[in-house]
Amino acid sequence: MSDDTILLAHGSGGKLMHELIEKTIAPLVGGAILSTLDDAAEIVLDGASRLAFTTDSYVVNPIIFPGGDIGRLAVSGTVNDLAMKGARPIAISLALIIEEGLTIGELTRILESIARTAREAGVEVATGDTKVVERGSADRLFINTAGLGVIPPERSVSGANARPGDVVIVSGTLGDHGLAVMSEREGLGLSIPVESDVRPLTGLVEALFAAVPAEHVHVLRDPTRGGLATTLNEIAAQSGVTIVLDDESIPVREEVRGACEVLGFDPLYVANEGKFVAVVSPESADAALAALRAHPDGEEAALIGEVEDAGSRKPAVFVRTSLGSRRFLSMLTGEQLPRIC
Amino acid sequence: MSDDTILLAHGSGGKLMHELIEKTIAPLVGGAILSTLDDAAEIVLDGASRLAFTTDSYVVNPIIFPGGDIGRLAVSGTVNDLAMKGARPIAISLALIIEEGLTIGELTRILESIARTAREAGVEVATGDTKVVERGSADRLFINTAGLGVIPPERSVSGANARPGDVVIVSGTLGDHGLAVMSEREGLGLSIPVESDVRPLTGLVEALFAAVPAEHVHVLRDPTRGGLATTLNEIAAQSGVTIVLDDESIPVREEVRGACEVLGFDPLYVANEGKFVAVVSPESADAALAALRAHPDGEEAALIGEVEDAGSRKPAVFVRTSLGSRRFLSMLTGEQLPRIC
Repeated sequence: MSDDTILLAHGSGGKLMHELIEKTIAPLVGGAILSTLDDAAEIVLDGASRLAFTTDSYVVNPIIFPGGDIGRLAVSGTVNDLAMKGARPIAISLALIIEEGLTIGELTRILESIARTAREAGVEVATGDTKVVERGSADRLFINTAGLGVIPPERSVSGANARPGDVVIVSGTLGDHGLAVMSEREGLGLSIPVESDVRPLTGLVEALFAAVPAEHVHVLRDPTRGGLATTLNEIAAQSGVTIVLDDESIPVREEVRGACEVLGFDPLYVANEGKFVAVVSPESADAALAALRAHPDGEEAALIGEVEDAGSRKPAVFVRTSLGSRRFLSMLTGEQLPRIC
Repeated sequence: MSDDTILLAHGSGGKLMHELIEKTIAPLVGGAILSTLDDAAEIVLDGASRLAFTTDSYVVNPIIFPGGDIGRLAVSGTVNDLAMKGARPIAISLALIIEEGLTIGELTRILESIARTAREAGVEVATGDTKVVERGSADRLFINTAGLGVIPPERSVSGANARPGDVVIVSGTLGDHGLAVMSEREGLGLSIPVESDVRPLTGLVEALFAAVPAEHVHVLRDPTRGGLATTLNEIAAQSGVTIVLDDESIPVREEVRGACEVLGFDPLYVANEGKFVAVVSPESADAALAALRAHPDGEEAALIGEVEDAGSRKPAVFVRTSLGSRRFLSMLTGEQLPRIC
């Protein structure tokens, strides 16, 4: 590994990416970009409106995979980053970088998926851009979407808000998206096919806020690149707490667990696109879980752990095994699944 | 040319790109994206704030060129799209797609340029994203920036607002950016090197609004891809008017004119990045011109033509030659300079 060169692992969402952002990007481009530790930045206008603003580029390979495509991903991923700030989406931008040779038919299919997903998420595509580059200068299609949302005044959600005593809830099964993309890319021919869970989470997040007092929802975060393990490590570090998970309560589909074993992946590090983690006050744990399970996008929601005081120790994440021991769960190091989103 | 496949010319800003947007993208992704006929969309919040929202991806090749680099371009281009709606920029996003193998040194140089240009434009980088793709899956570095601005209530600027009698002003010389990138890419070794004019136009636009009543500024537009000719054709079509230019009043540097002759380019179709076109009420023509010329970014501003009633004719752009004849100036067709921004 050379210190001098950008590696694939710098884009993995794991340790190298955090180092790149903290050591190279943030010091140069200014303190505010550190807000990317949350999924969206908060901007307060003079009129006291609180806006959420976020951006993501999508480079998933292949551009069409079981359960979704790059267009559905580009709308969902950005709308979900807004929802993870408690924001209601109002507009997204759509910027296409097309490799010469993509067919109009393929582009049309992706655009139809974008339109369908935007309607599902209740958001409008307000502005756009189209660039075309020569064959070999891109990989078929890259999409960037930026998102703009309004944060209702009573909501205050951040990765820094987890408190000792809080419970950790996940909105559904883990690893589906990463495995679906990987199986398509590698032509694995899984005996039980895995479908991506990519979807907008706006409705599910609104259902949560409708069921519990807004001030009881402390953290929302979607475990995309780097998976649940990396996301929880980010939350632990931002909040200065210890997070302890119950191994047996973490929902993973049988077929995902099986495929992960064959491929040597840990489902806790595999990317998700239609799931979120909520850190909630203990008194609202039951109401939150019930609200999520009552919604079609959250039927498999589960309470998977709790937040503890870190005391004088470094913030960290542990998994409690069925035997009662605690296993340390680190952030993703290196690259597990490149170009998963 | 195949109807089935995306060609480089679909990204040129000219006729094929307009067709792609109008026939394939806009009908699918919804009417609102037609607002991309302006450089930014306008979004009205409940609190009556008027927001401008815009996005652009930058794929310029090479990433460093005389007078600028992809980072300066990515900040200026997006901030300028906000300014072209009369908006004051408040935040931009920064999304990097990096080809594996780019050096940290090169990335640092680009990030420093981004930081410097953002300070110059008075805008904050509020949120970001970093993706890395394999060697051969991108061309070194692509950048997307989306921009968010606030439009002061008294300003109403759109490509649809040009009226018969208005004057057409350009803020400086034409063709500099396109020629600078092209000469670097082709290793032309021009005897008089041409530098790109890439710069944020926020200050110059504010100087204009400080000098004339806001309601006298009808159209602002930066003539990027497709050059002045394409931009004026867009304005003529949006406003339903005829635009007539005076050939001899259009400012083009001697070295740009010379290089264009050698290369077979028409400077009116070459991309600019630090210039804008203003369509202004005739009673404010002198004040507007004086204000631009008094600003360091507008010293070579010139009044280049006027708007006429299209009557029953199709909206169009003409150039009046020194002999008094009128030459039809079409929109760019085909591809002149790929990957210029």
